[in-house]
Amino acid sequence: MTEDALTDAAALTRLRAAPSTTALGAGTLLRLLRDGRPRTRSELAGATGLARSTVTQRVDALLASGLIGPTGEAVSTGGRPPTTFSFRPRARVVLAADLGATHARLALTDMAADVVAEARADLDISLGPEPVLDWVVERGRALIAQADRDVSELLGLGIGLPGPVQHSTGRAVNPPIMPGWDGFDVPGYVGERLAVPVLVDNDVNIMAIGEHHTAWPIASHLMFVKVATGIGCGIVSEGRVYRGAQGAAGDMGHIHVATGADKPCRCGNTGCLEAVASGAALAAALTEEGVPAAGARDVVELARNGSVPALRALRQAGRDIGEVLAASVNMFNPSVIVIGGALALAGDHLLAGVREVIYQRSLPLATEHLNIVSSEAGEGAGVIGAAVLVIEHCLSPEHADRLISGTA
Amino acid sequence: MTEDALTDAAALTRLRAAPSTTALGAGTLLRLLRDGRPRTRSELAGATGLARSTVTQRVDALLASGLIGPTGEAVSTGGRPPTTFSFRPRARVVLAADLGATHARLALTDMAADVVAEARADLDISLGPEPVLDWVVERGRALIAQADRDVSELLGLGIGLPGPVQHSTGRAVNPPIMPGWDGFDVPGYVGERLAVPVLVDNDVNIMAIGEHHTAWPIASHLMFVKVATGIGCGIVSEGRVYRGAQGAAGDMGHIHVATGADKPCRCGNTGCLEAVASGAALAAALTEEGVPAAGARDVVELARNGSVPALRALRQAGRDIGEVLAASVNMFNPSVIVIGGALALAGDHLLAGVREVIYQRSLPLATEHLNIVSSEAGEGAGVIGAAVLVIEHCLSPEHADRLISGTA
Repeated sequence: MTEDALTDAAALTRLRAAPSTTALGAGTLLRLLRDGRPRTRSELAGATGLARSTVTQRVDALLASGLIGPTGEAVSTGGRPPTTFSFRPRARVVLAADLGATHARLALTDMAADVVAEARADLDISLGPEPVLDWVVERGRALIAQADRDVSELLGLGIGLPGPVQHSTGRAVNPPIMPGWDGFDVPGYVGERLAVPVLVDNDVNIMAIGEHHTAWPIASHLMFVKVATGIGCGIVSEGRVYRGAQGAAGDMGHIHVATGADKPCRCGNTGCLEAVASGAALAAALTEEGVPAAGARDVVELARNGSVPALRALRQAGRDIGEVLAASVNMFNPSVIVIGGALALAGDHLLAGVREVIYQRSLPLATEHLNIVSSEAGEGAGVIGAAVLVIEHCLSPEHADRLISGTA
Repeated sequence: MTEDALTDAAALTRLRAAPSTTALGAGTLLRLLRDGRPRTRSELAGATGLARSTVTQRVDALLASGLIGPTGEAVSTGGRPPTTFSFRPRARVVLAADLGATHARLALTDMAADVVAEARADLDISLGPEPVLDWVVERGRALIAQADRDVSELLGLGIGLPGPVQHSTGRAVNPPIMPGWDGFDVPGYVGERLAVPVLVDNDVNIMAIGEHHTAWPIASHLMFVKVATGIGCGIVSEGRVYRGAQGAAGDMGHIHVATGADKPCRCGNTGCLEAVASGAALAAALTEEGVPAAGARDVVELARNGSVPALRALRQAGRDIGEVLAASVNMFNPSVIVIGGALALAGDHLLAGVREVIYQRSLPLATEHLNIVSSEAGEGAGVIGAAVLVIEHCLSPEHADRLISGTA
């Protein structure tokens, strides 16, 4: 098997893993071409098993959509040299919003999730869905104009929300810090203003996707832990977000830990990880110790200034988080654990505590090749992940077919 | 979209999820036909997008292999009515072995994993690989003859071993109770004697597959917990065994539990679940309490006779197991948890303890539709799972292509 054939085989395996309800259409060819390598019509027919006439038809549709373009001529084997085609990642743009409790970040990217333009704002999520989403739409239009692009070139919009989201409908479900958002039809509201697909997910899932895309693209099983006011986890397994049966996977903040004892948690239970190791819990405990702190950012500030109680608290929080992760390492055997979120900005004390307990408690086979690291994508992870979510959805064979035929 | 088209779309989605390194070959048509519904050549061309001439070629190859047969004629739309074809699950047979510490079970099944003939024996795994595998091969040949089939009809052989297995190579890795097996080339040794694909996995993974196939075929995320001399877990996610990055997933026996304190475990660590809740741990604790028990089966016998210390111990073991599972429910949101293994035969006391802690500790969203149940497949789960493992492997598009062209 030649190297090219291997590349095609790998690309085809990946595209078959994508859900689809249609036969192999133009979207399948697009998926194959997304690796950037130019291919002739014959190569596309050979790689997919599609009839030559079908390939010609679908290549024409892709050319008309602008998603692929001719790249040159292949080496001729006699006669007129055949044209090669490749994917054009800049043909469309994507809007991606990462909405936090009090801050919002918006990015315009291309179809490789590379950021073209960006905006930030102090925006309180508790204002409710309409003003917040109006800001996303208006600021989004401005970013598109600023980048000399047109709204007609918009592929889709991805939004991360700071609370539980039912991914299939894009609605928030009982979000504790988002008054007015419960059950609100986010894709419906935004889709009326920007006629493109709108994908909504919770903030930690989009951060996990962004981190995977940026720093660990070939990792098979990645867990991204966000340690901020609360504690949550996003899981990327075999290239896709692992959501579990009800989409509730990754809710690690309410797992019981030994040091939790019967300490009350905001969820109504006692002894949860979040009740002892979150930014809110650490700030409260330090304040009680006589070291005043209002939240996660104050704890980080104290730690940076060398406050021993703050450093001790961060180290112990790391151990508590490590206790939960050590069990997950034995049960689910990830290859990468990334520690991110506001508390992770305080230096290596949190990470050291996590590592200490995982290496002490997990099985040697499961930790032999395990990476336990800080976030590399940093604060930009969310918007990159939201963009990747949109790109993977819209360019999946099923949806790309509709996009290409112009019905999406 | 008609109902038939929907069925094809669903089947095609499933087949695209299967790993493959070839273009859409005869194996793809076979995969589509495995649902049992007869289809014409045109229907197969329509469902796959393959050229009509390609479909004809591949249907001929499938007919020659005997894996499909003509089933009748479709309703004519004028002219000679077209022939329909369907999958023939009894065209080949599968051997499946479930090897325990001291017992072995062997089954001959068809390609729907229905058992055709079965054998059992007291066989000590510690005899080492050669005598144990010789028994599998010889008894296997006898089962084939007994069912009036021929060795040439054998599709493959699946083997479950009571210890950690590197699935990709089929070798046991540091198995604690299997002297002589460490690194032994099981597929190589058996393949020399029976020239068919040999798949090896650990016993709890094949039990999970068997339970999923028998009782929960449409469950998206199933965890099968085997509570016997040791404690292990097999995870079936989206229809496939979830193995994790190093294939170490499901090792729940060495997760720390609160009641474990600093109790030493055979793994070298302290406070592991297995040190307090396994059959071996319960038997030791009861013996110390003045209620002699040599192992898991004695504990079950005591419980059946109403021994209060045994019932109390089982209930507490259930709670300890529930503590570990409650964390996994929050983190991975399964739809079904099955409790199996020798200790689960003692009635509902173990299961009641598991349920008690999961419902107390896990989040409402994650437990709302969660089933926590006893094994239905029972002691036959292992051989059925080993057979399914072989069938899914050999009939996957990649391997079926080789099988059909006769090079497998």
